[in-house]
Amino acid sequence: MSQREIGVGLLGMGTVGRGVYRILKDNKMIIEKRAGVPITVKKVLVRDTAKNRDIEIPEGLLTTDINDILDDPGIDIVVELLGGIRPALEYSLRALGKNKSLVTANKDMIALHGQELFAAAEIGRRDLFFEGSVAGGIPIIRPLKECLAANRITRVIGIINGTTNYMLTRMSKEGLDFRQALEEAQALGYAEADPSADVEGFDAARKLAIIASIAFNTRIPLDKVYVEGVTRITAEDIAYAANLNYVIKLLGIARENADGVEVRVHPTLLPKNHPLASVNDVFNAIFVTGDAVGDVMFYGRGAGEMSTASAVAADVMNAARNLANNCPGMTGCTCFEEKQIKAMGLTATKYYIRIDVADKPGVLASIAYIFGNNDVSLASVIQHTAGKSAELVLITHEVFEQNLQTALKGIKDLPVVNEVSNVIRVEGV
Amino acid sequence: MSQREIGVGLLGMGTVGRGVYRILKDNKMIIEKRAGVPITVKKVLVRDTAKNRDIEIPEGLLTTDINDILDDPGIDIVVELLGGIRPALEYSLRALGKNKSLVTANKDMIALHGQELFAAAEIGRRDLFFEGSVAGGIPIIRPLKECLAANRITRVIGIINGTTNYMLTRMSKEGLDFRQALEEAQALGYAEADPSADVEGFDAARKLAIIASIAFNTRIPLDKVYVEGVTRITAEDIAYAANLNYVIKLLGIARENADGVEVRVHPTLLPKNHPLASVNDVFNAIFVTGDAVGDVMFYGRGAGEMSTASAVAADVMNAARNLANNCPGMTGCTCFEEKQIKAMGLTATKYYIRIDVADKPGVLASIAYIFGNNDVSLASVIQHTAGKSAELVLITHEVFEQNLQTALKGIKDLPVVNEVSNVIRVEGV
Repeated sequence: MSQREIGVGLLGMGTVGRGVYRILKDNKMIIEKRAGVPITVKKVLVRDTAKNRDIEIPEGLLTTDINDILDDPGIDIVVELLGGIRPALEYSLRALGKNKSLVTANKDMIALHGQELFAAAEIGRRDLFFEGSVAGGIPIIRPLKECLAANRITRVIGIINGTTNYMLTRMSKEGLDFRQALEEAQALGYAEADPSADVEGFDAARKLAIIASIAFNTRIPLDKVYVEGVTRITAEDIAYAANLNYVIKLLGIARENADGVEVRVHPTLLPKNHPLASVNDVFNAIFVTGDAVGDVMFYGRGAGEMSTASAVAADVMNAARNLANNCPGMTGCTCFEEKQIKAMGLTATKYYIRIDVADKPGVLASIAYIFGNNDVSLASVIQHTAGKSAELVLITHEVFEQNLQTALKGIKDLPVVNEVSNVIRVEGV
Repeated sequence: MSQREIGVGLLGMGTVGRGVYRILKDNKMIIEKRAGVPITVKKVLVRDTAKNRDIEIPEGLLTTDINDILDDPGIDIVVELLGGIRPALEYSLRALGKNKSLVTANKDMIALHGQELFAAAEIGRRDLFFEGSVAGGIPIIRPLKECLAANRITRVIGIINGTTNYMLTRMSKEGLDFRQALEEAQALGYAEADPSADVEGFDAARKLAIIASIAFNTRIPLDKVYVEGVTRITAEDIAYAANLNYVIKLLGIARENADGVEVRVHPTLLPKNHPLASVNDVFNAIFVTGDAVGDVMFYGRGAGEMSTASAVAADVMNAARNLANNCPGMTGCTCFEEKQIKAMGLTATKYYIRIDVADKPGVLASIAYIFGNNDVSLASVIQHTAGKSAELVLITHEVFEQNLQTALKGIKDLPVVNEVSNVIRVEGV
């Protein structure tokens, strides 16, 4: 061992910061034995040192000056828990520039600026760990980088947003509509007052970009991730799906095949017997397929003070062990390839389509005609009649997105079609 | 990097050995980039070099002499895939003695001789990795040692034997009895001609001893693991359990609380909504509870040539990276505590009890009286009558094993009791 103690500087003492501080303090002895070196939090950057934090903090631990951390040679690892880009990115780059290892749970920063951060880590040969940025305490980054590293990963499918999974579970189990489910999630503190990052799929997209970059060893720019949220999912869609033996989940899907890489977040019909279908409430799970290992799944609580803190504290321990053994920076950036990301029109899936039509003879024929002309073949058709109009629920075979979109344009223009009420992708087993 | 290439010697080329060889060859480029160093299999120990192996093998790769591997300074990592204790243990100790890192998938050897092996690894400061020894390709050893390392683990529950899980799934879904399910498993190659290691729970016990040792940082001697197999589970038990909203699974359960550590393998009634309840067929899953992370689960195929080979190849990559960075042996033995393992009589669970009784008045009263006298309180009682006799199915509240056993002795002696047909533990959520 080259160092007698590893010093840690925490940036931020919000919920996760408090959790990390608690774990490193409460489990100190076991952590020291497992990491092989004592780990001590030496400074914590906060905005206001006088704020009441419901936690006992030694005199002099808190500071409002980032330089107290960056300039302290006794601080070996900086743990960035500020969230967002500013000033998290600047502080992180400066910490790496001072040859400190960096641990972060900041998905925005990693998804948008991973490349810069890794470049900075490489110059000083320090570790950059970010297990807490995806799926809370569920191990996924390290398992992908290390445990499944001998595999060519062909597919990752994840439920990686707890808020929407809670809402969809409630809609599915209690028949709530979207608005009711959202209000409930907000009342429970699972959804923010402005829920758009969750319900529009942006949060899941960031996490998927991070996971897919690692799985496929290629940088996935966030703007190349196709994103569709859950705001258009209705109680009717969930009921129709259930009748067809599907549940609706907001999935992050990343695949690689000979044509390239697909990376997309959207609501998806999933067969009820798929292992992800029974992942309910705020739980997250990530289902990975590798050429050797086959299918594996990682399941757990995807958020929360202590769950995310568990991942962050483990990263700190691994960074500390590497420092103590003079080998930080062994596992750097793994985006050593430059793969094409497929245009969405060229992806192929099955679709669930719900169409509000006039209840007249020949309607199905005219719709089926347009689908047929666009190479969209139908696997099943169910018609529900209610008064003068009727609802058609169709499931297609696997078709190209661009063919489906062209067909839908034609169908929307049919005089017998009142509305294409919803179009949701279907994921096979 | 201190080394330009890492040489590997494989001991054994059975199914897993062939899988490892294939992965290291087929995924060579990606493995080199991810590990940061080229990895080459230099020698493979076999019994018969002339045997047809359905795989292309370069001239001179195979040897029947272990010294060709142990004495080769170009071999940095020895991969032991012989299975069993002899000669696997001797070869492994000799490899570590020659300062080679060791990767093994040998659960018998690790469960029985882990301590010696770790001691040998520590002397030469080399890595000893054994991810493949438990649950095939599912990452569990490294996640416990690294990703969840900041947690105090309080509980591990696993479905860690694929053969019995397949059999119980078939009994549950198709109503097969034990014999039929076993024959089916044998016909499919999931069960051996002598199935005792699987159906008596010994295979699961070895894996549980390994997992629990890591989770609780204390050596769990194999003979301290309580083991009960599935041979007494009948189609009736499964049907009764299903009516009560339970499934029956062979579980490995390890817990730690203030009284000590419990480590036991036995068939268990598990509520249908527990995440492990829907783990079917040959799939394995391990459910871990930590003080910070809460519940997490790892799921996948627990056996098979390529799945186990995936874990072994990943271990080889990690050992290679550590060698290339001059830091092998960083994560050694983690059994730094000496914890008491609770006597089985002092463990407390709920029980399912099926009793064949005479269909007479007062029978339930006399049984309930004995339970009451022994502090065994009942949560539910269902009586099924058939002809002159009747079957009582009882579920207890949580009681001490020793109290239950005393009560059962008394109940067996009652003249109205024909037989205590089965007693199965019940695991809560």
